[in-house]
Amino acid sequence: MTRATLTISSKNYSSWSLRGWLLCRMAGIEFEEVPVNLDDPNVRRELLLLSPSVLVPRLVHNGVTVWDTLAIAEYCAEIAPEAGLLPADQATRAHCRAVSGEMHSGFYNLRSALPMNIKARHEKFKVFTGARPDIERIREIWSECLGTYGGPWLFGAHPTLADAMYAPVCSRFQTYAVDLDPKLAAYRDLVLSWPLFQEWAADASSEADEIIELEVEF
Amino acid sequence: MTRATLTISSKNYSSWSLRGWLLCRMAGIEFEEVPVNLDDPNVRRELLLLSPSVLVPRLVHNGVTVWDTLAIAEYCAEIAPEAGLLPADQATRAHCRAVSGEMHSGFYNLRSALPMNIKARHEKFKVFTGARPDIERIREIWSECLGTYGGPWLFGAHPTLADAMYAPVCSRFQTYAVDLDPKLAAYRDLVLSWPLFQEWAADASSEADEIIELEVEF
Repeated sequence: MTRATLTISSKNYSSWSLRGWLLCRMAGIEFEEVPVNLDDPNVRRELLLLSPSVLVPRLVHNGVTVWDTLAIAEYCAEIAPEAGLLPADQATRAHCRAVSGEMHSGFYNLRSALPMNIKARHEKFKVFTGARPDIERIREIWSECLGTYGGPWLFGAHPTLADAMYAPVCSRFQTYAVDLDPKLAAYRDLVLSWPLFQEWAADASSEADEIIELEVEF
Repeated sequence: MTRATLTISSKNYSSWSLRGWLLCRMAGIEFEEVPVNLDDPNVRRELLLLSPSVLVPRLVHNGVTVWDTLAIAEYCAEIAPEAGLLPADQATRAHCRAVSGEMHSGFYNLRSALPMNIKARHEKFKVFTGARPDIERIREIWSECLGTYGGPWLFGAHPTLADAMYAPVCSRFQTYAVDLDPKLAAYRDLVLSWPLFQEWAADASSEADEIIELEVEF
């Protein structure tokens, strides 16, 4: 059988790549990482939110080609049900998919005003933009999940799809020093200390300098 | 058992409401439509793409509350597998979810430049904006699906999740007279003549005039 591949973009900047990578690793898929060429204009357009996201993440596994983060998540959940990407209880599973779907389709202002930039720290960053309602909604989602299911992950004792979806938000909240109450800060820190996130962040930190020019364009 | 409810917004303008409604009807769920109050500022913000979409569509069914269109779709597919919302073949199912996910998370320029407006006709509309790459990508997706699975629906003989996701695009292509080659135009017309779409569009046409003021703000 050919080895699986996952096409990803910058580890420092591409939040969708991070989500897809976490999901595949959570499902225990062994894959080879295929980096896209960051000099390719299509890749740059996609990274700068200027064109539809079809290049990354993209998983090729057992003859199946699947892109789009939620489609990858559902595929991973199908082939590795024991990994618990989706909660076992139907109503909880619907809730998990709902908040994951919100992250997938929304929060445009947050994404454009506070782009993921794992290695940067902007301690005095002020959120002046339309991203404020997005941040408020995320606080609400996290509070409701942690309150309902008891933490420490959004849907209980183990990480699920939802934690993979919100992992880049945890990184943004660190980068831009977004204020969180202690319960939510503890959740953010749990995600940031998650061994899978740490592994990704280490690679992000050592990513070649030439793509830093991207920051100018944001 | 309490009757199911589906909270929806304007039938003329709310593309997410249309998608959620189609999915629930395709799954054979009997539900009562609960309209949101279009004078509510939160509702208006959401309809104008200014805040996260959490109010509509929202399904309450058998004690499960689920919002976000793809989460509703997965719930519908779980409770009514015989409805065929998702293709039976795993690779095809992954493809169906991938193009549905693209519609869910992307095409922001298309959505803001060519908002759904079922009863309007702008025959000489010129697409000057960043929506052009979005339209090109949709042509590509439709061509690939119709070519691979033989039509007349995107994934073969019956409508699936993907057709519900792209139904508002068919309406936009009609409203703004977007040029399509004959094969793609035939697909658009199939969706527009779909009895479920026709039922929705009839309600959109008779929707009260007071919300037309929304158009001014776009």
